Amino acid sequence: MQTRSFARRAALVLAALSLPTVALADGLIDNVTGITLDKDGKVLRFTGLLVSPEGKVVKLLADSEKRPVKLDWRADEHGKVLLPGFIDAHGHVMELGFRALELDLSGTKSLDEAKARIAAYAAANPEKKWIIGGGWNQEVWGLGRFPTAAELDTVVSDRPVWLARADGHASWGNSAALKAAGVTAKSVSPAGGRIEKTGVQPNGVFVDAAQALVEKVVPRPQPKERDVAFLKAQEILMSYGITATADMGTSMDDWLAYRRTGDAGNLRVRIMSYGMGVDTAVRIGGAGPTPWLYGDRLRMGGVKLYADGALGSRGAWLKKPYSDAPGQSGAGFMSDDVIRNYLSRAALDHYQVAVHAIGDRANAEVLSAIEDMADTYKGDRRWRIEHAQIVDPVDLPRFGKNGIIASMQPTHQTSDRAMAEARLGPDRLAGAYAWNSMLKNGATLAFGSDYPVEKPDPFAGWAAAFTRQDADGQPFGGWRPEERITREQAWWAFTGAAAYAGFAEDKFGRLGVGQRADFIIVDRDPLLASPTELRATKVEQTWIGGAKAWSRK
Amino acid sequence: MQTRSFARRAALVLAALSLPTVALADGLIDNVTGITLDKDGKVLRFTGLLVSPEGKVVKLLADSEKRPVKLDWRADEHGKVLLPGFIDAHGHVMELGFRALELDLSGTKSLDEAKARIAAYAAANPEKKWIIGGGWNQEVWGLGRFPTAAELDTVVSDRPVWLARADGHASWGNSAALKAAGVTAKSVSPAGGRIEKTGVQPNGVFVDAAQALVEKVVPRPQPKERDVAFLKAQEILMSYGITATADMGTSMDDWLAYRRTGDAGNLRVRIMSYGMGVDTAVRIGGAGPTPWLYGDRLRMGGVKLYADGALGSRGAWLKKPYSDAPGQSGAGFMSDDVIRNYLSRAALDHYQVAVHAIGDRANAEVLSAIEDMADTYKGDRRWRIEHAQIVDPVDLPRFGKNGIIASMQPTHQTSDRAMAEARLGPDRLAGAYAWNSMLKNGATLAFGSDYPVEKPDPFAGWAAAFTRQDADGQPFGGWRPEERITREQAWWAFTGAAAYAGFAEDKFGRLGVGQRADFIIVDRDPLLASPTELRATKVEQTWIGGAKAWSRK
Repeated sequence: MQTRSFARRAALVLAALSLPTVALADGLIDNVTGITLDKDGKVLRFTGLLVSPEGKVVKLLADSEKRPVKLDWRADEHGKVLLPGFIDAHGHVMELGFRALELDLSGTKSLDEAKARIAAYAAANPEKKWIIGGGWNQEVWGLGRFPTAAELDTVVSDRPVWLARADGHASWGNSAALKAAGVTAKSVSPAGGRIEKTGVQPNGVFVDAAQALVEKVVPRPQPKERDVAFLKAQEILMSYGITATADMGTSMDDWLAYRRTGDAGNLRVRIMSYGMGVDTAVRIGGAGPTPWLYGDRLRMGGVKLYADGALGSRGAWLKKPYSDAPGQSGAGFMSDDVIRNYLSRAALDHYQVAVHAIGDRANAEVLSAIEDMADTYKGDRRWRIEHAQIVDPVDLPRFGKNGIIASMQPTHQTSDRAMAEARLGPDRLAGAYAWNSMLKNGATLAFGSDYPVEKPDPFAGWAAAFTRQDADGQPFGGWRPEERITREQAWWAFTGAAAYAGFAEDKFGRLGVGQRADFIIVDRDPLLASPTELRATKVEQTWIGGAKAWSRK
Repeated sequence: MQTRSFARRAALVLAALSLPTVALADGLIDNVTGITLDKDGKVLRFTGLLVSPEGKVVKLLADSEKRPVKLDWRADEHGKVLLPGFIDAHGHVMELGFRALELDLSGTKSLDEAKARIAAYAAANPEKKWIIGGGWNQEVWGLGRFPTAAELDTVVSDRPVWLARADGHASWGNSAALKAAGVTAKSVSPAGGRIEKTGVQPNGVFVDAAQALVEKVVPRPQPKERDVAFLKAQEILMSYGITATADMGTSMDDWLAYRRTGDAGNLRVRIMSYGMGVDTAVRIGGAGPTPWLYGDRLRMGGVKLYADGALGSRGAWLKKPYSDAPGQSGAGFMSDDVIRNYLSRAALDHYQVAVHAIGDRANAEVLSAIEDMADTYKGDRRWRIEHAQIVDPVDLPRFGKNGIIASMQPTHQTSDRAMAEARLGPDRLAGAYAWNSMLKNGATLAFGSDYPVEKPDPFAGWAAAFTRQDADGQPFGGWRPEERITREQAWWAFTGAAAYAGFAEDKFGRLGVGQRADFIIVDRDPLLASPTELRATKVEQTWIGGAKAWSRK
């Protein structure tokens, strides 16, 4: 007999997990209207789903097929619709949780409504030393300018207030916040950021990198508060039917919260993590991406970088000046050398690279940087450009090259339409939110919501993707309808392609043999629903790894 | 049938792991001279050890007992001695690894010998951008002065060299290192440090806080280099028969290296981690200590704090001045308020607290702070005082109160004896390295080595503990022999008590039913060996969790 080794022990434990024993039989979710795409994007229908003890798909069963007699469990869904779980290819997990726990201004239609909500929150939370929150959008308010510290002072002056714009690319503080941060008329805008001023006086709004001037004095959440925020985010995601998500810009503290949750056995939603900058990713992963942890529920696989800001705050980097601000073209966040150094450092150790690029200039620069890497870092790299919102049509073919993934957010198109027209004028929209052109040019199209900038609702994104219309059906016929894609293409971008974009297509993204049994029960058939009906879909149950993780009360 | 839940799935997997199946039978290590202490510290002898598939002790078998027929594996040790793995209650894991991988000047008898070793190392490591190392001692060299940068330049001038003195309280650089750090004739010695100079020119040696002037430019190890250092440390520990250790002052980067190693399935030695300061521990653990991870191989359970410095550099905080430096008494590292705040913050969330205290004043202050906490933070707290080297005899009874653990290092007594006599004079030694007094006063005594300050050799510590003599048998009859403890008491301090000191006594520390099967095969019976023979014990195999993790080549 041989002396025991670690390898042998591991093999034995694996054998125990895969051997059929008395205690371990498959489970069956039966009597469903099951629908999934296969790996070629073809629609499959089934009525039963056989799930292994490890939570993987054993078989899709047709109505006519005999069910196994020996089962560990059986759930009868009485004909309800079962779909693969959705995957959000671009979200901000912790921000979603904190947004839900902090002052939330999303949905406010005017500055006055926002002020009323701020005042009520401050009155209801007298113990909070700072009022923290976000979700405002001066465009939605019809304000035509940023709000000011003075306006905020009229509702809260006894303590600092610090509120992020919906897109996270600007923040609004009151005078107490500016004072706490030591911001004065002498304060200078940092590289990659802008202190909004009235004359020489900072007037309360800080764009992009300038936000750090105040954020350095904002109280940081305690680790146990982060855990609460994470569980909140996870619950929200599951309530929308999202079973896996990319986390675009994981900080060290975010990562530690995910690990604590995983260690405690409470991690449900699968997180494809992209470290905030190369240093964070490498500090966590070391010589390369981490393995998949907690039964394929967490992996630090890559790096998030920023090539520019956002369109709303005119931080997006354009080839030509903004139509509504002739002196401005935005700015790049990294020099040519810096972006290449970052890409190289990440790629050397096989970290995937995901670069935020909104403006046409930023997209062109990132494409050039990727093209410069391609000869050195061969193999399956799956370079990602996040948002890819405004692309010069001459640059569109460059997406298909080098296997670049266009990671886009359909609801941004519906939310940003009017603003984009104002920022860009009529002649620069040919490559804006150009989903169909991306596919035609050979890019892989992965969809997400950029939550909490938008709601993490995949049904809203799905409907927008094949209609180019918002929830009110506007505009009639769709905005630049030539960029619509099919219902099935959009579904794939929110499932299989979003998994592929995170090197996870062998693990999840569709219901197929060997895939993790991540699925949802919903109240209608999304392939037969009108766009309005599709947007109204209710998720009733969310299952992850063959176990029910969430259900509607 | 019930719908499947996560709890149910977990139960099923556990059932699979514990159910006897065809593939999973116990293993037997047979034909051993097995010796362990039981939980009451009584010696047990056995000839066979039955180990479960999960790597736990099923049974200790006497020679007369029948062996099971059905076994997964059987190892015949031909009568060799089998002992429980040792536990080091106080070590520095990553420092042990880095010390082993860098240039090691310890043992050099002259400057010339050191120069030859430096030159050889530089030649063998042409790719290293800096030559980093330590272990020199100009007193041992008979130099009568510090070495100089110019002397270092004669062997390495093409790149920076930076070498720590054996005690860590000074470092020696070459001209390239001084240049890289921007040190010039204009550089000023910082508070708490001294730049050694010849005339006005810095001459290469930096004392205490002045070391930071150069260290700020010394390249920090990359995460992948940390992984290599960790694996090296683990191998060294296993070669000494150490199967579990406290890590006294884990940094975030240390922790991330342990997790990477655990995630990759390469963590062998069990680490009881104490975060470097409250912030590090809480940032990792969140609302409380982490669970035991990787099959009881890693846990962030507490916090390491420093109440004072060390005796050799007169940084230890004494009640009365040093005998050999009448104007100095050392100093406390924390004010009364600060230490109480730290203890309180840690204890609030049930982090264990381990405070470094060397001098009698530091020990008294820590005892007072713990006493102030005891009414507020009740329950099983296991407050630890690390080193507890010089204690005023009037304070000794305070150790037995509040369940305080004295975490001490026997080899420090043998190494420090002459120095301690010089520092303290003859009248303050009654409470110095007072192991027996600690036990008599009801303290829990846990032993370690403080590696890499001392070698992590538990046999050297064990022999010192019951002889109060060094490896040369000096002094005759033992130094203050009334503080000797029995051979069995010392063994327990290096095993069961060291586990108890880390809240791990239910998991490891002895060979008993249900404990992790952590054991070593050695070349002699330590209970029959003379002190000299005991020190010469060779570890031949180290098993952790019922699997062979290391063996002598």
